[in-house]
Amino acid sequence: MKSAAFDRKEHVYQNDAFAELVKDAVRFFNGTPVQSLPPEENFFGTGVYALYYTGANPLYKKYAKLNRLSYGYPIYVGKAVPKGWRQARNSDSAESQSHELYTRIKEHSRNISISSDLLLRDFSCRFVIFEQEGSDMISTIESALIKLHRPLWNMAVDGFGNHDPGSGRYEQAKSDWDVIHTGRTWAEKCHGNPKDKNTILSNVERHLKTIG
Amino acid sequence: MKSAAFDRKEHVYQNDAFAELVKDAVRFFNGTPVQSLPPEENFFGTGVYALYYTGANPLYKKYAKLNRLSYGYPIYVGKAVPKGWRQARNSDSAESQSHELYTRIKEHSRNISISSDLLLRDFSCRFVIFEQEGSDMISTIESALIKLHRPLWNMAVDGFGNHDPGSGRYEQAKSDWDVIHTGRTWAEKCHGNPKDKNTILSNVERHLKTIG
Repeated sequence: MKSAAFDRKEHVYQNDAFAELVKDAVRFFNGTPVQSLPPEENFFGTGVYALYYTGANPLYKKYAKLNRLSYGYPIYVGKAVPKGWRQARNSDSAESQSHELYTRIKEHSRNISISSDLLLRDFSCRFVIFEQEGSDMISTIESALIKLHRPLWNMAVDGFGNHDPGSGRYEQAKSDWDVIHTGRTWAEKCHGNPKDKNTILSNVERHLKTIG
Repeated sequence: MKSAAFDRKEHVYQNDAFAELVKDAVRFFNGTPVQSLPPEENFFGTGVYALYYTGANPLYKKYAKLNRLSYGYPIYVGKAVPKGWRQARNSDSAESQSHELYTRIKEHSRNISISSDLLLRDFSCRFVIFEQEGSDMISTIESALIKLHRPLWNMAVDGFGNHDPGSGRYEQAKSDWDVIHTGRTWAEKCHGNPKDKNTILSNVERHLKTIG
């Protein structure tokens, strides 16, 4: 075809409402009740969650201090999107039945409880459920919360959210998180070259200086 | 900690403004000028694009027919997000310099032009650039456009957007797209078991019945 004359500005979408909406959702998130990890009741839905640490592990004492009076500094932020979201294949009925957000938080709980030097009772969580069209906001709000809080396990220690790569794929390296928190048996099977423990510990220290 | 009594509805975010905003952005997208593939001029920015087919390949004659009077039915929708977006690591300065949207569209052009049975001149495109905070909308708008248009190469023929997996990773199967459109040399190196060509062709036929 003969194309239109090119004018970049005709292709730029401008709408301040979006930034306002993200702020509104983040404010809502930060005002939701803090729950134990895992939450006491199973619930359905998909959405965004944050984990808070308030224990005595020396590595994370900064978080315990920052969260002393209110839960303002998550150590990790994550999301559970409707199945098939990337391919836009989810149907509302499937979504409304799913317990993916709870399941994801529960999985984190298990990983923490089997680690050698973390206590599950030292963690709490917040989460927000996004329903119907709202579920399209999930990635955006996760990203906004990460930008805002710069959580350690998202930004400086990779691997907390990893899954067992499965048989035949253990050539990869153990993640940063698994190097400093031993416990997951599948992580021990990964025989790639992991990052040096001292490097990770100084990354933690350096990153925590930028928080709070 | 002792957690709050659990009440699911305290954790549900409700805001109709989001669905309205998505509709506004989709409407804007569908009203942008159609350009040749690739667009005549390089430009900077990240965002969302759609490819339209209006050629004579019998496999896609339905698209040629549907798009006869206006470009309403993309065969593929994709996005280019700022680098580091998933980790929320992008800085505005890096973003404003990047040409990722154009680069992505250009890469598609190359893949189409080397395929044995598609002509680049039979394709056109639309694209919308999202700047600053707006770039958080990119995945949402891509997803909304895919839900709306159900493009064939997103939903029924996998692999058009794939990259060369790189040496040592050719154990995977050739994608659906590469089975029906030969041309990419790296695809020929993939020695996994691809889907049967006739299966893919009947997937195409079945999916196109649901469009328009």
